[in-house]
Amino acid sequence: MASSSATGADHLAHERSKAKFDVEAMKIVWAGSPHEFRVSDRMAHLVASDPSFRRENRAVLSRKELFTKALKKAAHSWKRITELGLSDEEASWLWFYVDELTFAYIHWGMFVPAIKGSGTEEQQNKWLPLATTMRIIGTYAQTELGHGSNVQGIETTATFDPTTDEFIIHSPTLTSSKWWSGGLGKIATHAVVYARVITPDGQDHGVNGFIVQIRSLDDHLPLPGVTVGDIGTKFGSGAFNSVDNGVLRFDHVRIPRNQMLMRVAHVTREGKYVLSNVPRQLLYGTMVYVRKIIVVDSSIALSRAVCIAARYSSVRRQFGSQNREINGIAVETPVIEYKTQQSRLFSLLASAYAFRFIGEWLKSLYTDLTQKLEANDFSTLAEAHACTAGLKSLTTSSAVHGIEECRKLCGGHGYLNSSGLPELYAVFAPSCTYEGDNTVLLLQVARFLMKTISQLPHSDQTHKLSGTIAYMALMDHYLIKYCCSVEKAEDWLKADVILKVFEARAIRMCVTCAQNLAKFADPSEGFSELSPDLVEAAIAHCQLIVVSKFIEKLQQKIEGNGVKQQLETLCHLYALDLIHKYSGDFISTGSLNPKQASLANDQLRALYAEVRPNVIALVDAFNYTDHFLGSILGCYDGNVYPKLYDEAWKDPLNDSVVTDGYPEYIKPLLNQQLLNARL
Amino acid sequence: MASSSATGADHLAHERSKAKFDVEAMKIVWAGSPHEFRVSDRMAHLVASDPSFRRENRAVLSRKELFTKALKKAAHSWKRITELGLSDEEASWLWFYVDELTFAYIHWGMFVPAIKGSGTEEQQNKWLPLATTMRIIGTYAQTELGHGSNVQGIETTATFDPTTDEFIIHSPTLTSSKWWSGGLGKIATHAVVYARVITPDGQDHGVNGFIVQIRSLDDHLPLPGVTVGDIGTKFGSGAFNSVDNGVLRFDHVRIPRNQMLMRVAHVTREGKYVLSNVPRQLLYGTMVYVRKIIVVDSSIALSRAVCIAARYSSVRRQFGSQNREINGIAVETPVIEYKTQQSRLFSLLASAYAFRFIGEWLKSLYTDLTQKLEANDFSTLAEAHACTAGLKSLTTSSAVHGIEECRKLCGGHGYLNSSGLPELYAVFAPSCTYEGDNTVLLLQVARFLMKTISQLPHSDQTHKLSGTIAYMALMDHYLIKYCCSVEKAEDWLKADVILKVFEARAIRMCVTCAQNLAKFADPSEGFSELSPDLVEAAIAHCQLIVVSKFIEKLQQKIEGNGVKQQLETLCHLYALDLIHKYSGDFISTGSLNPKQASLANDQLRALYAEVRPNVIALVDAFNYTDHFLGSILGCYDGNVYPKLYDEAWKDPLNDSVVTDGYPEYIKPLLNQQLLNARL
Repeated sequence: MASSSATGADHLAHERSKAKFDVEAMKIVWAGSPHEFRVSDRMAHLVASDPSFRRENRAVLSRKELFTKALKKAAHSWKRITELGLSDEEASWLWFYVDELTFAYIHWGMFVPAIKGSGTEEQQNKWLPLATTMRIIGTYAQTELGHGSNVQGIETTATFDPTTDEFIIHSPTLTSSKWWSGGLGKIATHAVVYARVITPDGQDHGVNGFIVQIRSLDDHLPLPGVTVGDIGTKFGSGAFNSVDNGVLRFDHVRIPRNQMLMRVAHVTREGKYVLSNVPRQLLYGTMVYVRKIIVVDSSIALSRAVCIAARYSSVRRQFGSQNREINGIAVETPVIEYKTQQSRLFSLLASAYAFRFIGEWLKSLYTDLTQKLEANDFSTLAEAHACTAGLKSLTTSSAVHGIEECRKLCGGHGYLNSSGLPELYAVFAPSCTYEGDNTVLLLQVARFLMKTISQLPHSDQTHKLSGTIAYMALMDHYLIKYCCSVEKAEDWLKADVILKVFEARAIRMCVTCAQNLAKFADPSEGFSELSPDLVEAAIAHCQLIVVSKFIEKLQQKIEGNGVKQQLETLCHLYALDLIHKYSGDFISTGSLNPKQASLANDQLRALYAEVRPNVIALVDAFNYTDHFLGSILGCYDGNVYPKLYDEAWKDPLNDSVVTDGYPEYIKPLLNQQLLNARL
Repeated sequence: MASSSATGADHLAHERSKAKFDVEAMKIVWAGSPHEFRVSDRMAHLVASDPSFRRENRAVLSRKELFTKALKKAAHSWKRITELGLSDEEASWLWFYVDELTFAYIHWGMFVPAIKGSGTEEQQNKWLPLATTMRIIGTYAQTELGHGSNVQGIETTATFDPTTDEFIIHSPTLTSSKWWSGGLGKIATHAVVYARVITPDGQDHGVNGFIVQIRSLDDHLPLPGVTVGDIGTKFGSGAFNSVDNGVLRFDHVRIPRNQMLMRVAHVTREGKYVLSNVPRQLLYGTMVYVRKIIVVDSSIALSRAVCIAARYSSVRRQFGSQNREINGIAVETPVIEYKTQQSRLFSLLASAYAFRFIGEWLKSLYTDLTQKLEANDFSTLAEAHACTAGLKSLTTSSAVHGIEECRKLCGGHGYLNSSGLPELYAVFAPSCTYEGDNTVLLLQVARFLMKTISQLPHSDQTHKLSGTIAYMALMDHYLIKYCCSVEKAEDWLKADVILKVFEARAIRMCVTCAQNLAKFADPSEGFSELSPDLVEAAIAHCQLIVVSKFIEKLQQKIEGNGVKQQLETLCHLYALDLIHKYSGDFISTGSLNPKQASLANDQLRALYAEVRPNVIALVDAFNYTDHFLGSILGCYDGNVYPKLYDEAWKDPLNDSVVTDGYPEYIKPLLNQQLLNARL
């Protein structure tokens, strides 16, 4: 009989000794720079070593307990930030590693940026000092009960009253109730409220943001005319349930005129709506900013899950005890040795790295865009917007799916909350919906691609094809001449070959869509009818971007022994895995033939063996503390079973030997007839 | 501005009026027979109308409250069953509609069947009267901390002591702790414990089941030598957290020899291990039984999610207010009108029906198999076993993924627990792992397929190809002559065409695997190396089974106006959706060409328009009460928004206007400097 008695700790030490690259150097690559590594590492350990930040077993708590404990951690976080005089950068890492969703998340992530993005300088000077010292706590109230994706359809009104120089904020219908805003339900004192601007002439000028105080700073009671509360519990235990996502209704609430966020438009004292000379497009900059952050979050969420699954897969053993011994005892095979496990896990590992680098690239894209916008150069905005929207959609969908894959790769024990995976999933699941529903975003990308293609025949336009759509200038080449050159499996290791096949597939799918669209007399009807195909074309385009930026990353200087080689393997793995999974696209567009698809698959399988000895080091490079991972299955030392066993006894159900409810509900069942104690 | 004020109730009534078939007749088709419809319908309403079964807001409860409330419902269920003198059939429907996971689920679903399946007649006569009256409560203790899929590797021992005529049940290691058994942690009085049989000569005879009492029937305390407790919380709020999945350790616990389940083997008074003349294969019958039930569960779980998403998609409106009015008010477009929504939702609706019929077919397969086994005919066992294993894997994976798709199709509101979708997901998610990990099961199917193919060249074997592998007899035809005949989109509506293309793809993928396997000197190494491809071949085979049984269903007599037509549309939709999603398989095997794939896609999109007017009626046909659905988004009358709004206020966080924790954690933040109440 096989034994499982060799400790997990032994296994992981052995795994680490096999790595063929410099893990410390890879940590810096993952972090982005030596500086970012140092700051984040210091904050990670600061949080991990502070008992006030210890993770409790959140799943056993009632909603109220969960909520109050989260408030306590938020208050402690702020206390530490001020006591230690942390910089903004350090503070944001501290919030990150505390890893408890609260009002602070929305205050810093949405309220403060909204004022920065949509407020005038004067407004920023007034509100930011209050907000950034948390003397007011804000939320972002856009979505309504009846309106999510269609922001222009929201119903809340802000009617200007020239007699008092005030806006009257009002919720005219049930469906106009603000809904979902985090921190709103029980905490926020202020909100950036999006409402339709109505001038005294009765004209509706569309949607704008307003700073509205909703609770008293004295006693925290809602102000007159404000109805506010929590919208109830959400997916998972823990997860977003520590946040008071809220509902908010206004009954003719009056605010001073100067609380309209006036960067792009304002209403004069007389009640005239005036657009400022700041172009509306600037607001897209904020959208690009938020979505860039979500892409970075995708790589983090996925990498946490992959780290857990990789470590546990190296500890967990099942079947196949032949020829495998540790200290002379026959043991079963670690599940990470199984190719079925490798094919799923390693592709997710590669995705985590791919998304990390695409997030890094988006940071530079955003910096570049901001500079251009400030110089009134909007030439790259549409492309940047489409590409960020598409990448947000692609990375969140993949990460959400990948986290669940990791849970399944951990077998039954992945279903325990102590694995950390259920909460990781529940926390990241809504990312497919918030800040732009993923399908809606892909349709925006598709619309941009179709527009690009429709302008292509005009040769004066091709030089405008910059950035992620530059390859479209080669349309004729790809439609007529291109032929994939692969003849043997190793050909698939050439960056150039990979890139071209992704370009060919994307452009051909786009062109087919465009040709089909042209058959419709009514373009909007055509777009609607073909939307499922357009979504697929948009995905092909976004996958190309991720692959091409991964390849670009490899062309940069990369420090550390063997680091570049590892990344190359992961890049190949990421690309070939997509070619395999989307082989229908590639083959049906003629971008490659079935034989070449089969060779890609062969090469993909061959890469698993290269990743295998490095897998634990590759997840160690994420530099996650056990505190941050919050997972017994993913613990650094791999000593999984004793920890699982000890953790079990902490459940409140184990507080008493005989369970609550026994006298009322169980004893009467068992005693339906007289029975002896032992049958 | 578009308004959302038209009530949801109006919309769904309108939707229902559009249906082009007899919904009542479809309800009977879905239920399986008029009898099953009547019984289930009666029990559904019995449960829905009993206030004791009302669903509470489980997500706000602490673990202990959740657990105790579930016990109360279980006790009430049993009270009603006995008071009303319900038949076994009725009782099982009652448990089903109460829809609260407790010890009863495992007692009836695992403990009782284990005794029936593995006990001798004498043992059944002794234990079943106690178990079926719930005077003892049992669980099923197989999985251990260190062993799940590999049942033969479990470590618990049952050593026979001839001096006392007893077995000594013992847990030799930490990893041998029994783990996961439902109802074990705090409730069960007895367990069927799987342990290695060790005879006095020291020989290990492998794993067998034993009935072991673990708690006193007097005071419910664990018996001497028994350590037992709950293993802690699991995925989601509510979900499996109302079940006390448990850990169990034995310190030399003695049980009488006759508590070994002795149907296939027993140990004599002298300590000799003796196989009975009952073939071991009979135990596979139980496995087929349990997996058949899980397939049925898949269709139920998926259909609940689809029902919710379909109804809400008809109520929810977003974008596009042109030309659409209700009572003269311009309204936005119901999201169900969007083709992207249709392409995802309708394929899941078709899957729910497909899985329903495959479950129905598996029932008849099981009946047939049982009769054969009783007549000592094992000729179809391997095929039945492989097919059930594969279908369990396919349907659970698809249903679990589909439930999440439905949640995403409901946008942000799907993330609220009041949508019912998060709990539905958390409850069904582990089905991919329990009763056979889905990947492990597909590898078993692949092994069976490879064995079948390896025997094909021997012509004397082809006549043995019955049931779901009969098509393999046509291997030569499919490898050499077959050519898909489709020339226009409508050709894809021919059952024969669909069936053949699925057969061609499955057989060609299997043969490619077999050819690649033959290249390895060591077959087990080959199987391991090629396992990811083998899994894909197994999926192709299983999809063929589902498609072919759906087609067979349509060849039976089906009552009711338009019912058959609806099912035909769903069958085509199911098959064409697979052809589209797996087009890489189909094209690369040459089972169809890119042009034909494109025509399949055209036909698929065309089917959406046929489903569209019938979609609400098609989910109404599931006949789910609002109680059973447990979803505001899916409520029958479609009056979603007022219900969401009212439900929100019931959250405990809304008990007080000023939140708990305000004085300690929020007030000090806001008052970091003196501020006036209103800025």
